[in-house]
Amino acid sequence: MSGNASGLLRWEELKFDALLLSWLPNVRYVSGFTGSNGMALLTPDGVTLFTDPRYTIRAAEECRGRAKLVVAKGPLIKAAAQAIHRRHLKRIGFEKAHLTYESWQTLKELLPLGAGLKPAGPLIEERRMIKTAEEVERIRRSVRTNSAAFDAAVKKIKPGMSESQLAAELEYQMRRRGAEKPAFDTIVASGPRTALPHAQPTGQRFRDRELILIDMGATQEGYASDMTRMVFLSEPGPETRKMYEAVLEAQQAGIEAVRDGVRADRVDGAARRILKAHGMAGAFVHSTGHGLGLEIHEPPRLGKKDKTQLRAGMVVTIEPGVYVEGTGGVRIEDTVLVTENGCEILTPTSKELTVL
Amino acid sequence: MSGNASGLLRWEELKFDALLLSWLPNVRYVSGFTGSNGMALLTPDGVTLFTDPRYTIRAAEECRGRAKLVVAKGPLIKAAAQAIHRRHLKRIGFEKAHLTYESWQTLKELLPLGAGLKPAGPLIEERRMIKTAEEVERIRRSVRTNSAAFDAAVKKIKPGMSESQLAAELEYQMRRRGAEKPAFDTIVASGPRTALPHAQPTGQRFRDRELILIDMGATQEGYASDMTRMVFLSEPGPETRKMYEAVLEAQQAGIEAVRDGVRADRVDGAARRILKAHGMAGAFVHSTGHGLGLEIHEPPRLGKKDKTQLRAGMVVTIEPGVYVEGTGGVRIEDTVLVTENGCEILTPTSKELTVL
Repeated sequence: MSGNASGLLRWEELKFDALLLSWLPNVRYVSGFTGSNGMALLTPDGVTLFTDPRYTIRAAEECRGRAKLVVAKGPLIKAAAQAIHRRHLKRIGFEKAHLTYESWQTLKELLPLGAGLKPAGPLIEERRMIKTAEEVERIRRSVRTNSAAFDAAVKKIKPGMSESQLAAELEYQMRRRGAEKPAFDTIVASGPRTALPHAQPTGQRFRDRELILIDMGATQEGYASDMTRMVFLSEPGPETRKMYEAVLEAQQAGIEAVRDGVRADRVDGAARRILKAHGMAGAFVHSTGHGLGLEIHEPPRLGKKDKTQLRAGMVVTIEPGVYVEGTGGVRIEDTVLVTENGCEILTPTSKELTVL
Repeated sequence: MSGNASGLLRWEELKFDALLLSWLPNVRYVSGFTGSNGMALLTPDGVTLFTDPRYTIRAAEECRGRAKLVVAKGPLIKAAAQAIHRRHLKRIGFEKAHLTYESWQTLKELLPLGAGLKPAGPLIEERRMIKTAEEVERIRRSVRTNSAAFDAAVKKIKPGMSESQLAAELEYQMRRRGAEKPAFDTIVASGPRTALPHAQPTGQRFRDRELILIDMGATQEGYASDMTRMVFLSEPGPETRKMYEAVLEAQQAGIEAVRDGVRADRVDGAARRILKAHGMAGAFVHSTGHGLGLEIHEPPRLGKKDKTQLRAGMVVTIEPGVYVEGTGGVRIEDTVLVTENGCEILTPTSKELTVL
């Protein structure tokens, strides 16, 4: 993103003259501001960023040429209301999925006579679905960092190491390679704990003959990556191998279904069908994937109900998994870029069943 | 927290028969649930937790004996509305500072005839201000981890190391000592970049004769710690030394003002007065401190306007700072436990001006 973000919206089709953004990833998208306290007012003639005095210098650097800056001493919602007054704006859109009831109430009370609030859907999120060339490059770098961190950390795995130690190592390796932070709490689960789709790493130590699930992502230059791999400390038993092969087949079917124009729910269906054929449909308890970018979870959702058409330039994960309480779980996940005729798998890490 | 959380509220004084919690730290506080998608319904007879199928196993483990569990396939707000129907609840409180406009709207539409929504203030946050003995122990462990990580990482500082490398090292050392993650984005700033109160670490390398600001916190067993220290690569110049001494004096004045019964704004005033006497009041652009616990920033706020009376069992930071654009900044911060007659400084790290 650069230049004037007000061109993101087709103002003539909207029911408002200004859109107040309170969701930080959207604020960043339109203004460049990366701090933890900001709002943005988008009008046909430009962007105004509201932040507090802690960020005066950073905001000035980041928003130069992209947004006017208002440094407010009190609540940002009040500063936004003042700007609305000053500029005689009448119809104010707000992000209904993000603005809190309290801020909405405050804003409503402070509005000038004759002005009104209009709930707006995910307008900026919709624009964010299709990545610019610069955003794709950032995601590529984030994905590469993430995979390189995986390679470096996996070399250190041995029986007796704990889930938490491996998570610490994975995150350290990301950071050393330029990530600002993990894109989400790194998941490392071993043995039966792999059956928890969102396991937190514990002090549990790896034992021989166990499978390990690693779900990790980096945030680099603001952009997320996301990958899941299984690692085996010795040759897996026949049941685990069967699960692995079924999930890999489903993941590949998902990837093959991705192309410009296909509906998100069809990609989910392609992966789900394979697991059903293996009698594992009931053990696949989440959707097949999600968009990512400034956030780790963005639209579209590659699930049963999302009818969004995928478009070239979208970046999504493909990550089917099966989970059997008491036994364990398997998930395999890549980050892919939707293209005209299919997709480019950005994640370079091998998906061969690997025994350390 | 353990046992039945419904006793947290004085129901007879409230205008509702049930309180719907959507803010995850509050949900965790009343139910024990640590996942990323949850809501809780608190009534005089107990707690119901709503989450999605990814968390079925974890939620059952974490909430045992504390909350009934509802695993919902769709939006949690709809599952909550169904529970409200089933139990014939009529007056439903919600967290006005956290519930989004959209969820409020959805809930309103799904409510049974004759039922109504009542905006509620930070009722659970108010209870969370005073920590239980178990919470204090968790914060102690988090603080110790954080300081030990600082000690280990500082040994590795040398000219040529970058801000990002040091941040990575600090976070790795936290993780190795049992932290789940950093409590916030670790701040490492050097030279003139110390003038940014919330600087992000960059590739900037440490030079001789520079000052380095490190603001770091761990999250361990869910609980935050927070500490800021300055590190000098060689003897500081007279101006920097003067800033350091003034900030340290202000920080000590803040700490001395803390005790059961004192107002939060008085603690801020005590620190601010010292900086004013040194002619640095205008360079102190934030408040003196904040509560911490399940969140890194919790009430009370030790600022100019917060009239909350501090109470024994509260845990707060004391962190005055001065920032001069182009020159640099100094901040010194401890985590302290409010006691009957004063406070206990939990942070064990020395505040002597240290030259590496």
